[in-house]
Amino acid sequence: MFQYERKIQYHETDKMGISHHSNYVKWMEEARVAFLDSINLPFQAIEACGIASPVMGLSIAYKKPTTFGDTVLIEVAMTKYTGVQLEVGYTIRLASTGIVAATAATKHCFLQNGRVISLQRADPEMHRILDLAFKRCCAEQHEAEGTKEES
Amino acid sequence: MFQYERKIQYHETDKMGISHHSNYVKWMEEARVAFLDSINLPFQAIEACGIASPVMGLSIAYKKPTTFGDTVLIEVAMTKYTGVQLEVGYTIRLASTGIVAATAATKHCFLQNGRVISLQRADPEMHRILDLAFKRCCAEQHEAEGTKEES
Amino acid sequence: MFQYERKIQYHETDKMGISHHSNYVKWMEEARVAFLDSINLPFQAIEACGIASPVMGLSIAYKKPTTFGDTVLIEVAMTKYTGVQLEVGYTIRLASTGIVAATAATKHCFLQNGRVISLQRADPEMHRILDLAFKRCCAEQHEAEGTKEES
Amino acid sequence: MFQYERKIQYHETDKMGISHHSNYVKWMEEARVAFLDSINLPFQAIEACGIASPVMGLSIAYKKPTTFGDTVLIEVAMTKYTGVQLEVGYTIRLASTGIVAATAATKHCFLQNGRVISLQRADPEMHRILDLAFKRCCAEQHEAEGTKEES
Repeated sequence: MFQYERKIQYHETDKMGISHHSNYVKWMEEARVAFLDSINLPFQAIEACGIASPVMGLSIAYKKPTTFGDTVLIEVAMTKYTGVQLEVGYTIRLASTGIVAATAATKHCFLQNGRVISLQRADPEMHRILDLAFKRCCAEQHEAEGTKEES
Repeated sequence: MFQYERKIQYHETDKMGISHHSNYVKWMEEARVAFLDSINLPFQAIEACGIASPVMGLSIAYKKPTTFGDTVLIEVAMTKYTGVQLEVGYTIRLASTGIVAATAATKHCFLQNGRVISLQRADPEMHRILDLAFKRCCAEQHEAEGTKEES
Repeated sequence: MFQYERKIQYHETDKMGISHHSNYVKWMEEARVAFLDSINLPFQAIEACGIASPVMGLSIAYKKPTTFGDTVLIEVAMTKYTGVQLEVGYTIRLASTGIVAATAATKHCFLQNGRVISLQRADPEMHRILDLAFKRCCAEQHEAEGTKEES
Repeated sequence: MFQYERKIQYHETDKMGISHHSNYVKWMEEARVAFLDSINLPFQAIEACGIASPVMGLSIAYKKPTTFGDTVLIEVAMTKYTGVQLEVGYTIRLASTGIVAATAATKHCFLQNGRVISLQRADPEMHRILDLAFKRCCAEQHEAEGTKEES
């Protein structure tokens, strides 16, 4: 599964002494961008085609605080892809212990000239790459669940 | 219903030309802080008692983009309060048109010395204020729904 | 002298318990935008003419910390304007005491189609407004210094 | 010379399409923290001794814009260290071309229990590490200038 590594910065803490919860949204974007790089579909290439993929919705469940000095590992997986809708799931773990600090999800559509499009029709090659990546994510998820059941 | 007014700043935009979606989490915090001020329970007073109220979860549904020059009105309401759990709902509207730009929710608990507490037991006066505010929010919500049904 | 009022937000604090120093740069931008509104030259109008006014340089001297719950008053004044170069000065005071928390300055040029331009030639009306505002700032500064000397 | 590598993130851009100028202050902090790690004086160790090293002043000269997709290399060097005062210089280069995007500087003091201290007296070991690092920075600077003169 794709992982994005991120050091928590001093400027990301708040007066409670922990990472401010708004930063997780930024880390998720960074992890998503790195995931797209990993499947050879860099976000810059998508934008170069005049296609935007805005965030339509997001949710985060905060489980353990993180702070300056911590490194987090963010697992990214496509959890839905229809050519029109894209959903991405995130598991944020403390690198030192593997403990889950947060789980999260984002929903996206595709826009061209300000209108929602089907990527399948608008850019078949881009669609093929995302569809393949989605299938790989599903297979990895299936395998991970199988491993858990066995153990 | 309590409303928090917020101008969108230039530094909150991104290269898509719209407010970056991570800023909504900050606006929600600002609106929550202003709501607590409005019920005479400023966040500073809560912290002065050694009580923290961290965000346990959040969700946002983005409906219309906002950008520099826009002013948003954020309606804040307590949607759940048990003395142990607190949930807050937000409706973010463009001030110029009243159109809903986003709806959102946050979940909170109360911590003292790093442990989850019942506010009802730990600080009855604070509990009384929040409980009263919650009942008012429920009544306002009920009234708003009644008005809709009548019309 | 033009003043911009700003509440310090919880999300602007860091683990030292004070406003993180990077936020001052954002407040300065907000104050600059509000100043331009006050002279009837909103930043949106400048951008609508295809003119950008990027920050070429900045400096900040931090004197007293600020934190969540504080309100700051930011005095903004044009300190140089030649039609080609613009310099802006800022004095950030704690609203409660008037104590100076920081002083700062920014330098700007004007760009059109990515090239440095003389605003005087490119947009005489915009130039006239800025030149008038600059002269007013100089007069106010002069007066303020006169008052100090007398006392 | 110590270098900190940093990818520019999407959330750091603004509607001009470039990295918002406030982010440079955050990058400088990240580079400073990484520099301290590199001399075996992690910021966490300083804070663990009850010593803070707040930013007293900063200046930035922006030369070329940077944006999403760019990687910057930030050279960090101590430019002054007296045991009481610390000054740090930064050169921010585009990794792809080596072109200087910005130069910058920060000034720091040392605080313990909210009072300015001499690190030399308060923590001789910490002072020794910083003093050694400062001398190495001076030597590297000297060498770099020598190389330039020869060529």
